[in-house]
Amino acid sequence: MTQALQQNPGMKMVRHAHFLETAAALKPHLHSQRRQPARLVTAQADASTLHGWRAQESGTPAELYAREWQSGDSVIVDFGTHCVGYLSLACHAAGSPPDAPAHLRLTFGETLCEVAEPFSDYQGWLCSSWLQQHDHYIDEFPASLTLPRRYCFRYLKIEVVAVSRKYRLCLDDISVNTVSSAPESCPPCLTQDPLLRKIDEVSVLTLRNCMQDVFEDGPKRDRRLWLGDLRLQALVNDVTFAEHDPVRRCLYLFAGNTREDGMLAANIFVQPEVIADDTFLFDYALFFIDVLHNYLSSSGDELTARELWPTAWRQVELALERCDASGLVRDSEDWWSFIDWHEALNKQAASQGVLIYCLERARLLALRYDASKVTVLTETLCKLKAAALSHLWDEKQGFYVSGAAKQVSVASQIWLVLADVGEAGQQRRIMEKLLENSPEPGMNTPYLRHHFIAALLKTGLQQQAVDEIKAYWGAMVEHGADTFWELFDPAHPEYSPYGSKLINSYCHAWSCTPAWFIRQFGL
Amino acid sequence: MTQALQQNPGMKMVRHAHFLETAAALKPHLHSQRRQPARLVTAQADASTLHGWRAQESGTPAELYAREWQSGDSVIVDFGTHCVGYLSLACHAAGSPPDAPAHLRLTFGETLCEVAEPFSDYQGWLCSSWLQQHDHYIDEFPASLTLPRRYCFRYLKIEVVAVSRKYRLCLDDISVNTVSSAPESCPPCLTQDPLLRKIDEVSVLTLRNCMQDVFEDGPKRDRRLWLGDLRLQALVNDVTFAEHDPVRRCLYLFAGNTREDGMLAANIFVQPEVIADDTFLFDYALFFIDVLHNYLSSSGDELTARELWPTAWRQVELALERCDASGLVRDSEDWWSFIDWHEALNKQAASQGVLIYCLERARLLALRYDASKVTVLTETLCKLKAAALSHLWDEKQGFYVSGAAKQVSVASQIWLVLADVGEAGQQRRIMEKLLENSPEPGMNTPYLRHHFIAALLKTGLQQQAVDEIKAYWGAMVEHGADTFWELFDPAHPEYSPYGSKLINSYCHAWSCTPAWFIRQFGL
Repeated sequence: MTQALQQNPGMKMVRHAHFLETAAALKPHLHSQRRQPARLVTAQADASTLHGWRAQESGTPAELYAREWQSGDSVIVDFGTHCVGYLSLACHAAGSPPDAPAHLRLTFGETLCEVAEPFSDYQGWLCSSWLQQHDHYIDEFPASLTLPRRYCFRYLKIEVVAVSRKYRLCLDDISVNTVSSAPESCPPCLTQDPLLRKIDEVSVLTLRNCMQDVFEDGPKRDRRLWLGDLRLQALVNDVTFAEHDPVRRCLYLFAGNTREDGMLAANIFVQPEVIADDTFLFDYALFFIDVLHNYLSSSGDELTARELWPTAWRQVELALERCDASGLVRDSEDWWSFIDWHEALNKQAASQGVLIYCLERARLLALRYDASKVTVLTETLCKLKAAALSHLWDEKQGFYVSGAAKQVSVASQIWLVLADVGEAGQQRRIMEKLLENSPEPGMNTPYLRHHFIAALLKTGLQQQAVDEIKAYWGAMVEHGADTFWELFDPAHPEYSPYGSKLINSYCHAWSCTPAWFIRQFGL
Repeated sequence: MTQALQQNPGMKMVRHAHFLETAAALKPHLHSQRRQPARLVTAQADASTLHGWRAQESGTPAELYAREWQSGDSVIVDFGTHCVGYLSLACHAAGSPPDAPAHLRLTFGETLCEVAEPFSDYQGWLCSSWLQQHDHYIDEFPASLTLPRRYCFRYLKIEVVAVSRKYRLCLDDISVNTVSSAPESCPPCLTQDPLLRKIDEVSVLTLRNCMQDVFEDGPKRDRRLWLGDLRLQALVNDVTFAEHDPVRRCLYLFAGNTREDGMLAANIFVQPEVIADDTFLFDYALFFIDVLHNYLSSSGDELTARELWPTAWRQVELALERCDASGLVRDSEDWWSFIDWHEALNKQAASQGVLIYCLERARLLALRYDASKVTVLTETLCKLKAAALSHLWDEKQGFYVSGAAKQVSVASQIWLVLADVGEAGQQRRIMEKLLENSPEPGMNTPYLRHHFIAALLKTGLQQQAVDEIKAYWGAMVEHGADTFWELFDPAHPEYSPYGSKLINSYCHAWSCTPAWFIRQFGL
């Protein structure tokens, strides 16, 4: 399996009009709030900070509006926290009548490094068009403009590239109209722990800023509905905004566009029309079952569960086609399962875990809506678990192995524990061993880190789970995160699977789950 | 006198509401025509061409639309001639669903050098915001867009800065909706000379593309109503489109905003509201009289001439305040008269010529509308001419001199001949001497070149005038001009008073006058 882009452009997809109509009717209202600049800052190179830059306060918004700007002047405006929305700007000219356009360059950064390091240096392999910049030419003064694109930022760098010598530019107003489908408030977090409370707050803002027309993975980059992200967002939504209709909408969006054989796409585009991406992931397709099961539990909406059960069941059938006679997920080079961003990670064992985990949720759904499938699911679960124990468990190492090379990874342990393979003591010993001496490949993303915490909690290691949340998400807070990041490896702060930290997403759905742990488990 | 920007930001201006209302009521309708690309070209470095670049045909528009574009691809689209208008572009994505925005960079050039040489290298002193570029991000496909700014170009460079690896960009349609207040056709040119016919055609397109909401000096840069340009445009308009209302509108715009003492500004801004620039030029203010006189002759509109006569007369009074007791225009370092773009040119003698020339037109207007001024104008004209002959004429050199350093320039001779100073034989000998052995400072712009041709025709040197038109404007045609340029010095093809050929205007009002000479004098 490779981490590069999947492309299946010739693939035929089937549209299910009824499902898509249901999804369209559930399009959410976006709440908006206008936000003013908090302060002006300069970016100071500082090797002791995570990304190499420190914000130094340099002025107030009043000073921003009092100044007269000439060619070459620039400023970094700090909006005080992470915003997703539409920028408005008003300005006038001072001096002689403006005899030439004004050329402004606006650069938007979720982090300071994005406005401090020139985009022209970007060498990553993900499309540079995600780097948020806008060149604007103002022909007439006074001018009042709202940029048509949505931006995602805390920092806005304004560069006056050129005004004529006959006049200076004066800014009158800068603001951002933030948008989210989440309501303005949610129930308070009841933890007494100040750090956990802060972590909860950052989690909630992360979710809020990802809740748009759909649950986006990241509002800066991708801006897309991914099944893997949706699954975690729905959990956090349950204990915060409790907006079940957006989850329902996303379930119908996925079900509305399937591959000819019924497999669900890993992600969906919704603009200008609903199109399923030609990316298919073994684990993500299975997660539809888990999202549906969780949605039913949270909302009590039997109608939806019943209507979408056949779609869920089809994912079971397709996933089982990848199993060999013994009930083991076959590994190969041309196969895709996400699990974690990791070049070296073999995904067989973890995928076995995901399959078992989701089949268990399928069994719970079948018990209510399709009794005929219960027996086969129960038997299959037994077989899959037995296969995991007999083929993947290495008693000597006390760990599961994966693939032909018998790789021992953190991901494999986590997912086979979450799948409830083996007895409770064995599961707990695995997790304790992971805490003591973590094998490589380890965990690269907050996404896998979520499953690690879940497995700790499952095996009764609650204090350790809290410690890990504080150590990991708490460290992001320490580094100044307003929202949780797509990628964070304390040991490799510059890590990006895309080749540049500039293109990483710093508000990412799959990182918002501490709020769920804290609230659901009363941490 | 300096060539730099004039700034008088504290100056009070007086608005004349009635005049501005008249101007507003005359706002012209803009005719538009959609134009398609003619061909694709590449820019080949070629030192033998004027600006160092040669267009090499590289494909058809059909090939443009058939191609699939990836990051880094670019193309130069040639629209076949000079266009002023609004660009529309439609495109779609091929391959997988587009998973990232497309980032396009569009660069517009009146000439090939503007799309071949990077704007980032621009070092001129005029505001770089005039360089025509637009970065566009397309978030949704298919996309159909019309850029909000008006551009002025023959060549459009399209660079696909970035698309993701999952898709390619396909262009479906590119067109420009050209705009002009000039009607679609004008009376044919009757000359039998093929080169003059071609020169006439280029002149007419130059005028057409400058005729917008007002008579602009250049539709790419400045885009503004200048009195000196208006005067020449009105002449060409008389013998081509014969649209007198736009001239009337511009007269009222100038008259509608005066300095407290009544002096007219050299140019006017009309967007978002009418504002006179704080630039005042001795010669341009006087030209109001000439434009008014010419407008009356062409249109027969007595009402306007009568209503604006007081404004014209005020320019006479103010200009005469600059004359010493002997009737000579005083020279100084803090004084502005345009005459030509030339750092070293002393403008005293030429300004004396402009003053006499315009006072003669004032006398003709006074004869009809203000008899009380006729005597004083007649006497003043005698005095000014006598002063020119006694103080500026150098019998030994056979040329007029200017300023304390007694500079002999081409401009001084031209303007004192056009002012009809001295007897006819003397005037003709001056022009013959200029043809034989031109002194320095010579002529830098087509603007002064126009007055040179006018002086040749005034002194009966018609064949020489034709030869000069062919040698100068014909050379621009030879160099591929679709419209005539703001600046052209055959001996110094890179000449720009602004420090870069990239920012020169290549469709400039003051260069469009050959059509007037050819048609008015039956050349």
